[in-house]
Amino acid sequence: MRDFRNWHITIAGLGVIGGSGGLALRKRECPYVYGIDTNPESLKKALQMGIIREGDTQGEELLKRSDLVVIALYPGLVADFLRERKGIFAKGALLTDVTGVKGQLAGELAGILKDRPDLDFILGHPMAGREKSGIEYASEVVFRDANYLIAVRPENTREHIETIKEFALFLGFGRVTEVTPDFHDEMIAYTSQLTHAIAVALMTSDIEGRDTGKYIGDSFRDLTRIANINEELWAELFLANKEALLAAMAAFSEEFSRIETALEENDPETLKKMFRRSTRRRNNL
Amino acid sequence: MRDFRNWHITIAGLGVIGGSGGLALRKRECPYVYGIDTNPESLKKALQMGIIREGDTQGEELLKRSDLVVIALYPGLVADFLRERKGIFAKGALLTDVTGVKGQLAGELAGILKDRPDLDFILGHPMAGREKSGIEYASEVVFRDANYLIAVRPENTREHIETIKEFALFLGFGRVTEVTPDFHDEMIAYTSQLTHAIAVALMTSDIEGRDTGKYIGDSFRDLTRIANINEELWAELFLANKEALLAAMAAFSEEFSRIETALEENDPETLKKMFRRSTRRRNNL
Repeated sequence: MRDFRNWHITIAGLGVIGGSGGLALRKRECPYVYGIDTNPESLKKALQMGIIREGDTQGEELLKRSDLVVIALYPGLVADFLRERKGIFAKGALLTDVTGVKGQLAGELAGILKDRPDLDFILGHPMAGREKSGIEYASEVVFRDANYLIAVRPENTREHIETIKEFALFLGFGRVTEVTPDFHDEMIAYTSQLTHAIAVALMTSDIEGRDTGKYIGDSFRDLTRIANINEELWAELFLANKEALLAAMAAFSEEFSRIETALEENDPETLKKMFRRSTRRRNNL
Repeated sequence: MRDFRNWHITIAGLGVIGGSGGLALRKRECPYVYGIDTNPESLKKALQMGIIREGDTQGEELLKRSDLVVIALYPGLVADFLRERKGIFAKGALLTDVTGVKGQLAGELAGILKDRPDLDFILGHPMAGREKSGIEYASEVVFRDANYLIAVRPENTREHIETIKEFALFLGFGRVTEVTPDFHDEMIAYTSQLTHAIAVALMTSDIEGRDTGKYIGDSFRDLTRIANINEELWAELFLANKEALLAAMAAFSEEFSRIETALEENDPETLKKMFRRSTRRRNNL
């Protein structure tokens, strides 16, 4: 395993994910961690929390000396961040991100980095987060044993993929899986965006004024936890993965309709068959 | 508060809920708890676990001396249990159940009990359970601070309603709410059966062979926990509450379709509006 404690690492974007990464690095005694954020308050907070050694709103000096740059910005800002700073990154620097949708960015990267072939950008997706946003909600605990996905582009070198893999394990993630950007987006449409769409629709379909809290058990609480959602981020993620999400939503609707039809037709056998199938699959997860 | 430690209490049906009730009574030092179950193994287990003092597959002698009878059978068995034993219950005994759907049974009770006006049947719904069935999964912890619903019938006396209310609090439930049987079923269709339908459809809409476990975060895990489902019980509950469940499913589908339309039309504003609404509602729960 590489010893990341000697690395100079810049985190761009000190939100809940960037901040959590910083906390994980602090806990693992990495002394050379820097932060970039347009919000001076977040930088101040990160310094106070001991997450970063130095911080800056632009970060030119920090990027020049960084071996690894973790871009933890909103999905739509990553490409511009690279375009604006691609002349600055240290020679041979390794770049990675934390975005939840990969296809779109994967398509742009080769073009953006074509005059900096020494830079390798490994698309990473830490599958851990919190409902709240902002560095004050950062927590390295959410990474523990979670899934980490690497969406491999043809330009990536094996060495750099392995480096990010080790970096994820170093941060506490439990499993790293390599996928293509398209398969990443197909899976995430199902496991992440669809689940958020469901939780939102469940919550908004409630009838106002029924005092629903009195009538819920753990199942409702669990299903709607993620209905508390960062609207800017998720609107962006949904639209950036529109095709795959619409396909996952259609597949879900078809199964949901099968339950409706079974009810209308008083057909317990179809219900039980579906329940057995869902139980078997859930147990296999 | 009534002191239930002096009461003779029979639990009919020593499954996960009946067993959990028994464990809660044991913890609260109630010495006169009896069990009825058609399965001798469950009786043996309940005796071993110290849940009951005596057990029987028929229970005639036990019912004769019971002040309170908790019927923890599958929904479809409750009416027959009463019909077969209504001559046996002690004079003035209080009866209650734990079923998740109330309208159907509420409609039958007056007829069944018309020649035993001394018996009062209070429809109860402990909103706590486990994915697993059987007494070996009994746990009184699931009751702690959970919701308990009482579906009040016109025949119920205030005194008996208050008794069951105190009994629920005695068992560890955190809040008891009185509702009509119809409103109960409307709410439960939304908070419980709809959530199970969603979890099942989410799980069965997965594409076989994708090794989905590698691509999930907490949200998927939380949403599908209840996709591990007791097929017999839930097919019964779904069909017994068909109309209300179909209405809740239709309302959900409408909101879900609004998300689909917003995606198709590249409309982030509608998405954000829905996300804000779901966040506000979730926080108000």
